[in-house]
Amino acid sequence: MSDTEIQDPIAELITNYNELNSSQIDQLPSEPSPLEFMRYVSKNTPFVVRGAALTWKATQTWTVPYLKSLLGETTQVNVAVTPSGNADSPYSLEQNGTTSLVFVKPHEEYQPFGEFLDFLTSSNSPTKEVRYAQTQNDNLRNEYLPLFSHVERTIPFARIALDCDPDAINMWIGTSHSTTALHKDNYENIYVQISGQKHFVLLPPICQPCVNEQMLEPAHYVRLPCEGAIPVPDSTDLGLVMEPHSPYVPFATWDPDSPMLNETEYSCLARPMKVTLNPGDMLYLPAMWYHKVSQSCKEGEVCVAVNYWYDMEFTGPLYPLTTFVRSVFNKEREIESDIEDEDGNDE
Amino acid sequence: MSDTEIQDPIAELITNYNELNSSQIDQLPSEPSPLEFMRYVSKNTPFVVRGAALTWKATQTWTVPYLKSLLGETTQVNVAVTPSGNADSPYSLEQNGTTSLVFVKPHEEYQPFGEFLDFLTSSNSPTKEVRYAQTQNDNLRNEYLPLFSHVERTIPFARIALDCDPDAINMWIGTSHSTTALHKDNYENIYVQISGQKHFVLLPPICQPCVNEQMLEPAHYVRLPCEGAIPVPDSTDLGLVMEPHSPYVPFATWDPDSPMLNETEYSCLARPMKVTLNPGDMLYLPAMWYHKVSQSCKEGEVCVAVNYWYDMEFTGPLYPLTTFVRSVFNKEREIESDIEDEDGNDE
Repeated sequence: MSDTEIQDPIAELITNYNELNSSQIDQLPSEPSPLEFMRYVSKNTPFVVRGAALTWKATQTWTVPYLKSLLGETTQVNVAVTPSGNADSPYSLEQNGTTSLVFVKPHEEYQPFGEFLDFLTSSNSPTKEVRYAQTQNDNLRNEYLPLFSHVERTIPFARIALDCDPDAINMWIGTSHSTTALHKDNYENIYVQISGQKHFVLLPPICQPCVNEQMLEPAHYVRLPCEGAIPVPDSTDLGLVMEPHSPYVPFATWDPDSPMLNETEYSCLARPMKVTLNPGDMLYLPAMWYHKVSQSCKEGEVCVAVNYWYDMEFTGPLYPLTTFVRSVFNKEREIESDIEDEDGNDE
Repeated sequence: MSDTEIQDPIAELITNYNELNSSQIDQLPSEPSPLEFMRYVSKNTPFVVRGAALTWKATQTWTVPYLKSLLGETTQVNVAVTPSGNADSPYSLEQNGTTSLVFVKPHEEYQPFGEFLDFLTSSNSPTKEVRYAQTQNDNLRNEYLPLFSHVERTIPFARIALDCDPDAINMWIGTSHSTTALHKDNYENIYVQISGQKHFVLLPPICQPCVNEQMLEPAHYVRLPCEGAIPVPDSTDLGLVMEPHSPYVPFATWDPDSPMLNETEYSCLARPMKVTLNPGDMLYLPAMWYHKVSQSCKEGEVCVAVNYWYDMEFTGPLYPLTTFVRSVFNKEREIESDIEDEDGNDE
């Protein structure tokens, strides 16, 4: 290479972004008008409205016994089961003396709703496992339909601004044992806390070079005994089954809460935005933002949230530019990896 | 290098953008609501409203004699003078047997408004030069203030959507001899044609790698005789003066209308959007879009347009991402230039 100093465009991008954008979330005094909302969509910037859903029937009435009475004790609901609350997340799998990072999905099973809630609220569960109702398939307008009339059918400012109805409305029921790993969705997201607290760690799309996305081999938990299952040290009841015929999953492996693990050279430049939602709080999570979500609630209670996914806009420059950031980072990685290979060959 | 195939992120960016976005401009049936406008701002996409300003007093009354009577025959106005209508544009300067591309600015002088209009509308001008009133310094609220009440003080949908008044309102008076070279502005721009036609060639901000931006030495035209002026072949009345103490100007050197000149390896991927404005038409030109503007009018008439510059949003990802595209392209150029230098040294 020559002596010319070549600046690092990726570092410059993240630094420029940090200089122009706050890492403190905007707090609005009330729900925005459609136009005010569209300004936030336009700048792909989150906000929170404290107490926006305090008057919703869900927020005012959804205790554990009332939920059981509404949906029915014996109604079967889909439940994600994991040893430690780690559904849909990277997992260090030790096998034959080597460690590899895989993408683990939960064991999914149907349980009577009453039994599921009893499990969540019992401090002495018979099995050491974590359960979470977290299907993101519009479950509030399907599986949980009897509860739907207690929340808004759509978020008015979002419907008017984006000129569409929600593509999916999802219900989340869990406890402080479950964490959703850092990931992103191609949706505009309105997230409403009903009971308990949710703790968000957010990163803008331009932070792709910080999150160390890797192609991970997929696996999923199964209940033991199960032929061919790999035992895992954190559970005697659950094991892992690899999915050799499924495509690898591109997934963030850096966790802003453990910044020295799996970091890239750019992770240190990220300025995570943190926000905790209390019951009734409403969060706008813009399309393509990375989010890690943990939760907490009192003993004997549950964390319940509802989120509305609206289609994002794929025209305009933002979506192709986000892909561009990934491609530039991956190409840089590829070149570095080639140089390392060549250095290796020389020795 | 290794045998691994490294894709070209810049080519991928432009191709992805082309697949997701039309190169035909959207035509709206009427002025948009503030919310509809904000959707276009959000996707940084132009539109045109045919006839939106047909009812403006300016569009209905601004003939050459009426303009003279409104502003006054003898009022002094700033006029840009060039040999061939090439104000603020790249110019191939031949000097001492070598050719270099410089950035030429017009000779600016004050002329009585009547004399200026007579020059524009006369087919037998005594001097071979091109004149254009094109100061972009809010001239309609200053130099041309007596005309201001004949146009809208602000564009209502833009004022409400962007929550600000125009930073500048600019008047343009010229003929088919003037062309504005491809460039971009950091403003949201509402452009209104009053008389004659304007022909726009538009490129989105992600096309930065197509436009062959170069750092050009600045120069400006002067009336001859002038000590130290460089004679130019296209004029006996005007010469060029270099500005050795002024900083170089970054400027697009590729012209979509002459695509084989000064092209980069990416220019062929650009899909220019073309639109002609007739009297009363209104164009939304989003922030940072490249635009080349030529014009035409009948003999004895003039081309008049008014544009409103509103502050663009610098928060959010678009501005830093646009800088990122430039930096990645420049770094790629730098590396290629280094490789060429090294190859040269080997010989």
